Amino acid sequence: MAHFMDIHKNMKGLTKDQLLEAHNQDLANEQGTGVHFQKAWGDPTSGWVFCLSEGPNREAIQQVHRRSGHPADEIFEVPVSVE
Amino acid sequence: MAHFMDIHKNMKGLTKDQLLEAHNQDLANEQGTGVHFQKAWGDPTSGWVFCLSEGPNREAIQQVHRRSGHPADEIFEVPVSVE
Repeated sequence: MAHFMDIHKNMKGLTKDQLLEAHNQDLANEQGTGVHFQKAWGDPTSGWVFCLSEGPNREAIQQVHRRSGHPADEIFEVPVSVE
Repeated sequence: MAHFMDIHKNMKGLTKDQLLEAHNQDLANEQGTGVHFQKAWGDPTSGWVFCLSEGPNREAIQQVHRRSGHPADEIFEVPVSVE
């Protein structure tokens, strides 16, 4: 499985509850796709949200986000990491 | 402590060892600043690197990155998260 960081740029005013709801939609819609959304971080001031996921490829990530009604603006594959 | 996601946009060809070295520089330079760099993810193809940290404010994050010789291009405070 590859790892991805995707960015949404239009979520100004986002609350914790809204981020949780969006994440739960992704978790419901990822079933059977090989995608798993792991974490998400949001900046309500700029409206940028970052989602960390794993999955087979970039398009699979976007397809789950589309089903949830919030396609990503950019998706980066992140094969190197330090945790 | 606040949480931050920062982005570096000019690290094409980045290797795992280089990311680890850059992260270790940040860990050395954050001492006494109240900043802690937690994780980092890199995309060698686009050259984008994402760093997750905590600290007192955006400027403190940038100051550590500057000491390490790799100032961030953008820094977002991310007060909402799902993990």
